[in-house]
Amino acid sequence: MHSPITVSDPLEDYLADCKEACDAEIEKLYGSGQHGTGGLYDLILDYPQRGGKALRPALAIAICLGLGGHLDAVLPTAATLELYHNAFLIHDDIEDESWWRRGKPTMHIDHGIPIAVNVGDAMLSLTLQPLLDNVGRVGLGPALRILRAVAHMTRQTVDGQAIELEWVRCNTWELTDADYLRMVELKTSWYSFITPLQAGAIAAGAGIDRLAPLEELGRHVGAAFQITDDLLNLRADPEDYGKEIGGDLWEGKRTLMLLHTLRNARPEDRDRAVGILGKRRPSMDGELNLTDLLDRLAGQGELSRTGRGAIADFLRTQQHCDPKTLDDIRWLFDLMQRMGSLDHARAVAAKHAQAAEAVLSGMDWLPASRHRDMLTHLTDFVHERTR
Amino acid sequence: MHSPITVSDPLEDYLADCKEACDAEIEKLYGSGQHGTGGLYDLILDYPQRGGKALRPALAIAICLGLGGHLDAVLPTAATLELYHNAFLIHDDIEDESWWRRGKPTMHIDHGIPIAVNVGDAMLSLTLQPLLDNVGRVGLGPALRILRAVAHMTRQTVDGQAIELEWVRCNTWELTDADYLRMVELKTSWYSFITPLQAGAIAAGAGIDRLAPLEELGRHVGAAFQITDDLLNLRADPEDYGKEIGGDLWEGKRTLMLLHTLRNARPEDRDRAVGILGKRRPSMDGELNLTDLLDRLAGQGELSRTGRGAIADFLRTQQHCDPKTLDDIRWLFDLMQRMGSLDHARAVAAKHAQAAEAVLSGMDWLPASRHRDMLTHLTDFVHERTR
Repeated sequence: MHSPITVSDPLEDYLADCKEACDAEIEKLYGSGQHGTGGLYDLILDYPQRGGKALRPALAIAICLGLGGHLDAVLPTAATLELYHNAFLIHDDIEDESWWRRGKPTMHIDHGIPIAVNVGDAMLSLTLQPLLDNVGRVGLGPALRILRAVAHMTRQTVDGQAIELEWVRCNTWELTDADYLRMVELKTSWYSFITPLQAGAIAAGAGIDRLAPLEELGRHVGAAFQITDDLLNLRADPEDYGKEIGGDLWEGKRTLMLLHTLRNARPEDRDRAVGILGKRRPSMDGELNLTDLLDRLAGQGELSRTGRGAIADFLRTQQHCDPKTLDDIRWLFDLMQRMGSLDHARAVAAKHAQAAEAVLSGMDWLPASRHRDMLTHLTDFVHERTR
Repeated sequence: MHSPITVSDPLEDYLADCKEACDAEIEKLYGSGQHGTGGLYDLILDYPQRGGKALRPALAIAICLGLGGHLDAVLPTAATLELYHNAFLIHDDIEDESWWRRGKPTMHIDHGIPIAVNVGDAMLSLTLQPLLDNVGRVGLGPALRILRAVAHMTRQTVDGQAIELEWVRCNTWELTDADYLRMVELKTSWYSFITPLQAGAIAAGAGIDRLAPLEELGRHVGAAFQITDDLLNLRADPEDYGKEIGGDLWEGKRTLMLLHTLRNARPEDRDRAVGILGKRRPSMDGELNLTDLLDRLAGQGELSRTGRGAIADFLRTQQHCDPKTLDDIRWLFDLMQRMGSLDHARAVAAKHAQAAEAVLSGMDWLPASRHRDMLTHLTDFVHERTR
């Protein structure tokens, strides 16, 4: 039950302040007021305006201000990182065949794949100019270092995404926790945590010796965050979480808990699970309804049993195999719970949250301030979420 | 008939030399030898290794060497522009639902849309590092100017692509030659001609006063080139041209000749043409075969007339409308020929080819050399193609 008295949460307050500044900067840098092609620029603002915590800009801002830098020095970079994030989300939603994002249909469901591919490309290509304009804001050396950090970040991200797609495509299951963590570091930690922290520090004029501990901090927070995100995906209220429930299972995503289950299940359960994961996900609409229609026609005597079978066979050939069913997903989820895989994942996430807290405690070069407090609250929050 | 004696063509020889150098550089910068995730990096090399003329690198190389610059100064930039081109091709093929590219199935037909989106993103994200490394090759000022030129180029390209997608999506037809030429300048001329020429000049240390005439040259060559490309699409031998015949008509692309036809046709023909263009293109496989199957089942008495109608209605609802047919495409093509639209397009292309020749003739700051000759041969070639 929600308390009738609103108690302000310092992390949420900090994030809300950053989001407000970042939204205004995104509107300034990328809004349709700046450009001719109205339709495209409205779509560029669609995902950023759907809400979201703007965690990445907040990290860049917190470390920059915490090290004595100015908001003006970091804000365009922070807004650009948020644009990267949203571009990746639009393309990830296509790649993962996701239907739902922050309480609305995904971009490609709303506007079709061609428009969604183009909007993501537009966002990626718009990121370069503000980073070049950093030269005038933070000086040549730091501007180039931020550009190099972003070049590295995008490489890591697409490599991580490629690994994940490849695992799903090949229906790979012989993977360890370390394999998963390496993929998550590439896919998530760099662009969500490490690069925002490093870019914020560089914008504040920090020396190169600050980058390694920030990488370490971002790696551990990223691991804890992604594992917890994957856990929430299994059980979340879509109103609250903004994604489809169990979407990862429908997509066949290799999460830490799924891999734990596959490694430890009895051979016959594992074979069945791998078989389910190898099935495609059903198409968003139509498939179930066409089956319904065929059943109805068969019931009315408009379609013979032979004809029904021939059409079903045809549809299967077209789509290579049967789709996953709701029963499949329920069985997988039950198996994962029986194997203790959710508890295992929670324990691994907690370990990384603790490691992040330890790294942060050791950063004696980051003076006490509400900006440093934000990082402490964030690691606390990530740790809380693991429970 | 081909002559049994091979007479060497100086433009083809120049392009072949540049392609060899560029292919080696792409392999060096982006090949799987450099990276861990084998599968992804093999796919990155797929489109570049399918052939193609490597026109964009050749332009950058010709202007750089023609201005006294060194090959080492321009080659990584030239290879990077070729990578941009191929990334755009992969995503364009998804956006245009193209099935065929340089004699093979397109990336998304071969590997699915998720992989094709990711590979294009990977290629786009890999372009930043070599351009940053230009600092050590051509100095800080020129390196930053090339980066700014590329930032501008990507903006123009996605804007142009967005305009074209929007015209198809809204089934727009009230567009002038000037509208088309503006779209082509954004979509094609910047990344295929203007930016390669400007980047090559900057790499040679050319002053800022050289950029405007190069922009003018690239704009005219680009217009002549794209119009001729659109004409070739209507009649090309796919073995020779590497794209589907009439693909633009199936896609509903607004070409100069199509817009000329729509502006000048009798109202009843125009209405029919706009109606055809508003239909979706048929899906690559399945659609015709499912119709065949339903017909056969109906013929064998396995499916009633009512059932046949219900399934056909269902499929139409799913796909919103009937697809274009081969007869539709033939009728459109005949109408375009009757309206003299192909001749009109050839005349506009020839005008831009002549304008390009005039701009090049006025460039007295580019000394006579085989590199300058390449640009002359290229404008001649573009002009020849318009006939």
